[in-house]
Amino acid sequence: MPRVLHPGPEAPGWRRRLHEVVFEADTPAGRRFDLLLLLLILASVGVVAAESVPELRAAHGPLFRKVEWLFTGLFTVEYVLRLVSLRRPARWARSLFGVVDLLAVLPTYLALFLPGAQTLLVLRALRLLRIFRVLKLAEFLAEAAVLRTALVASRRKILVFLGAILVLVLLLGSLMYLVEGEANGFVSIPTSIYWAIVTLTTVGYGDLAPQTAVGRILASLIMLMGYGILAVPTGIVTSELMSARSKIPTTQACPDCGAEGHDADARHCKYCGQRL
Amino acid sequence: MPRVLHPGPEAPGWRRRLHEVVFEADTPAGRRFDLLLLLLILASVGVVAAESVPELRAAHGPLFRKVEWLFTGLFTVEYVLRLVSLRRPARWARSLFGVVDLLAVLPTYLALFLPGAQTLLVLRALRLLRIFRVLKLAEFLAEAAVLRTALVASRRKILVFLGAILVLVLLLGSLMYLVEGEANGFVSIPTSIYWAIVTLTTVGYGDLAPQTAVGRILASLIMLMGYGILAVPTGIVTSELMSARSKIPTTQACPDCGAEGHDADARHCKYCGQRL
Amino acid sequence: MPRVLHPGPEAPGWRRRLHEVVFEADTPAGRRFDLLLLLLILASVGVVAAESVPELRAAHGPLFRKVEWLFTGLFTVEYVLRLVSLRRPARWARSLFGVVDLLAVLPTYLALFLPGAQTLLVLRALRLLRIFRVLKLAEFLAEAAVLRTALVASRRKILVFLGAILVLVLLLGSLMYLVEGEANGFVSIPTSIYWAIVTLTTVGYGDLAPQTAVGRILASLIMLMGYGILAVPTGIVTSELMSARSKIPTTQACPDCGAEGHDADARHCKYCGQRL
Amino acid sequence: MPRVLHPGPEAPGWRRRLHEVVFEADTPAGRRFDLLLLLLILASVGVVAAESVPELRAAHGPLFRKVEWLFTGLFTVEYVLRLVSLRRPARWARSLFGVVDLLAVLPTYLALFLPGAQTLLVLRALRLLRIFRVLKLAEFLAEAAVLRTALVASRRKILVFLGAILVLVLLLGSLMYLVEGEANGFVSIPTSIYWAIVTLTTVGYGDLAPQTAVGRILASLIMLMGYGILAVPTGIVTSELMSARSKIPTTQACPDCGAEGHDADARHCKYCGQRL
Repeated sequence: MPRVLHPGPEAPGWRRRLHEVVFEADTPAGRRFDLLLLLLILASVGVVAAESVPELRAAHGPLFRKVEWLFTGLFTVEYVLRLVSLRRPARWARSLFGVVDLLAVLPTYLALFLPGAQTLLVLRALRLLRIFRVLKLAEFLAEAAVLRTALVASRRKILVFLGAILVLVLLLGSLMYLVEGEANGFVSIPTSIYWAIVTLTTVGYGDLAPQTAVGRILASLIMLMGYGILAVPTGIVTSELMSARSKIPTTQACPDCGAEGHDADARHCKYCGQRL
Repeated sequence: MPRVLHPGPEAPGWRRRLHEVVFEADTPAGRRFDLLLLLLILASVGVVAAESVPELRAAHGPLFRKVEWLFTGLFTVEYVLRLVSLRRPARWARSLFGVVDLLAVLPTYLALFLPGAQTLLVLRALRLLRIFRVLKLAEFLAEAAVLRTALVASRRKILVFLGAILVLVLLLGSLMYLVEGEANGFVSIPTSIYWAIVTLTTVGYGDLAPQTAVGRILASLIMLMGYGILAVPTGIVTSELMSARSKIPTTQACPDCGAEGHDADARHCKYCGQRL
Repeated sequence: MPRVLHPGPEAPGWRRRLHEVVFEADTPAGRRFDLLLLLLILASVGVVAAESVPELRAAHGPLFRKVEWLFTGLFTVEYVLRLVSLRRPARWARSLFGVVDLLAVLPTYLALFLPGAQTLLVLRALRLLRIFRVLKLAEFLAEAAVLRTALVASRRKILVFLGAILVLVLLLGSLMYLVEGEANGFVSIPTSIYWAIVTLTTVGYGDLAPQTAVGRILASLIMLMGYGILAVPTGIVTSELMSARSKIPTTQACPDCGAEGHDADARHCKYCGQRL
Repeated sequence: MPRVLHPGPEAPGWRRRLHEVVFEADTPAGRRFDLLLLLLILASVGVVAAESVPELRAAHGPLFRKVEWLFTGLFTVEYVLRLVSLRRPARWARSLFGVVDLLAVLPTYLALFLPGAQTLLVLRALRLLRIFRVLKLAEFLAEAAVLRTALVASRRKILVFLGAILVLVLLLGSLMYLVEGEANGFVSIPTSIYWAIVTLTTVGYGDLAPQTAVGRILASLIMLMGYGILAVPTGIVTSELMSARSKIPTTQACPDCGAEGHDADARHCKYCGQRL
């Protein structure tokens, strides 16, 4: 949520108050609103999920439809409140969160004209991305910061790594297509590549499995490779996490002996006893 | 096991001795009792497990019933001894371990009135939680402390991480329901979410697997994602374990202010500056 | 790509310029050429993969053949340009990249005489190895160097580890062949070894699974072992990565003896003692 | 191989020489002998594996039998040479390696009287444990030492961890037996426990998979748990490996400034330039 979105200094009091509730997560009111909203989103996603179960839909169809309209009503009100509380509502409406919030209510209205459009209500799950907003609350801030720092720092190494995986999977998939052939289920190169990914990530559904001796030897090599390869992203993230940890805490130096590495709650240098 | 549970200073000698045996794990007698009890629990769980195998039940049914009554008798005696050795037995009976110990004997008695109730004897496996009490023995104390410290410290990061996984799984599951549809086994959103969890954790049963081209591409992305995501909790736990290792060793208290938790290389108290 | 490959100092200007474009990756022109080539390779691999899908081949067969000839033509021109720009073209033609580049065009020509030879066009995927050349571009250099240093340093430990895995898999496979036997699908020792690898790496296709009680107990032990064993390569790579991180930065040579490989915090050459 | 095994000081020269070749791995002759032996063992295991394949046995049965006798002859000669070269041969014959070496030749002789006994030749794979002896060669010594130190140091933590896994698997297996029941394939508690291990280790064969809604929710929890649990042994081994690394290298201090942390190949202090 970009910070530039605010009601403006000349806005009337009720608008500023409204903005504080629906957009801010730092004030008690804003926090309670965000948590309540998150619960509502979870409940609405739960209802959409439950409705997709054939037995439940047959038994409680009309009830589901009513609850759906209730949630759509609540989210529509929320959407309007958000628009009203901003100085430049159009700007927010075009942002990621604005579009997602619109997508969460649109399908129910669309279904009045286009039967079946409410299947798109599963898009409501996208609103759960809002959970990351709530996670920005004080107590999780430091943890999330460490995680984010580590992941951002690993970005390029992970990209190099994914590039290598991509080449490997294309090569191995093509090779298995030649070795196993269409008779054993490897009907095309894309299918073989899909199999190579399923195997290399150790998921191993078993819908496709090598049948020939050569294919099994090749598959064994891929698995052992996957075993070793799995170690690389873990190593990258771990080493970045440890590096991020050591950067986030206090790095204040002792004014007397210059030593660093003091704990965040330290009041005296642990080496010379000088007050920090 | 809370330390406040004791027979009281005015208790007669036999009661104190009994308490020492059945509740303490530091004295030789208490230690031997705990180990014997653990073996009995393992044996009784083994018997319940064996009885659940149709062939074994058909062949040795009456024998199993007798052994079951033997174990129930022994555990009942132990339960009564525990109650007798305490000043406030009701308090212990309502604690976690008290309830578990009662659940371990109740089903056999219940089965006298309610046929089939002894299936609940599998609850006896809960008594195995007692293994952690035995693990508190001296030689494992430091290791367990390091592990516990690391896991407690990772708690919040793991929560942030599980929140992200939850959102991801809801989104991907909903998406696959739209893409694959009921014809390919993705009969409802909850089923699709179950599939997304099975795939993201690289378990990959294969009872559900994508059939369409789009579904397979999406599944491949999920797998590669799961691959990278797997690295995060490992990185968190590893970095906390390494941090816990360097913090555990000294438990020396400051001679001046009594504060604990100094690093192994600290020469001065980090709170008051006193020489350690 | 060995650095000794160059047009020679006495080469005419157009040849030097050509060499710069097709072989160098540091100049703007060479870089653009490499990226364009990579896109072409990806596209040609995509076409080969698409042609292997029976439905697509049936619908667009003639089109695929035309596009194939187009790519073959482009790659042939590129191959000839590479030969022309070098002083000793035969030397490059016998190198890994030279052979791969030839293999990428040969199948189409061969198919004129040998119907079916164009299946070998999947070998074109090998040209994707060229991606690592593009990755050598400036911004990825440091990341790739850290990864390579860590992997090279882990090489021997990984070999020791793979040796242990090999022995384990041979032993466990043989054992399962005796325990489960041919009736349960473990038809031979090689098949059992294949199963052991599938299980130990946690891929778990499910095409082979133990049926007897003893076989399942043995399989459970293998799985728990695989769980623990998975930790070893990860530990190796992580610890090497963290060590590589702290070693990479300085590549400064000693002004006195020319030795390299000094730590980032080194102030004197560790070989001759000269101030750096 | 215990070092106390030697021919004794009063042994004749040929015996000492023989001992050096068949038992030592440090001398050039002993090293060559060990490598040759390892290749022979690998080849003989390969023949036993090949013979277990029905098609190959049908086609080349008599050949396999001849090669088998050849290997048995060679290993028998080696066994006798080992006995002859030692002062106390009985002591070695009762050691682990002595028993394994006997087991490697016995089945072929037994098969003369007991048809079918040669199936036991798969035990020959045990001789591959000898690979660890060869790994003791100079260049792998340091790597193996780091790995061994780390694994020995992790031993207790891994035990605590495996205890926790055991309890978890017993509890979850029992629970799934109650939830899913015999109709869905969870025919007994041991079978359910087997399923819990297959799931928790992310192997996921798919021969057993939850069918009911409650069972799938429970299974999802187990998988996410397994995901997090996988992180613990990795964290343990990584942190021990990093600790082992920092202990094995040179810890020599500079005689001038007292700084530590010099590389193994350093000849001068990297901080002050003083000769080490």
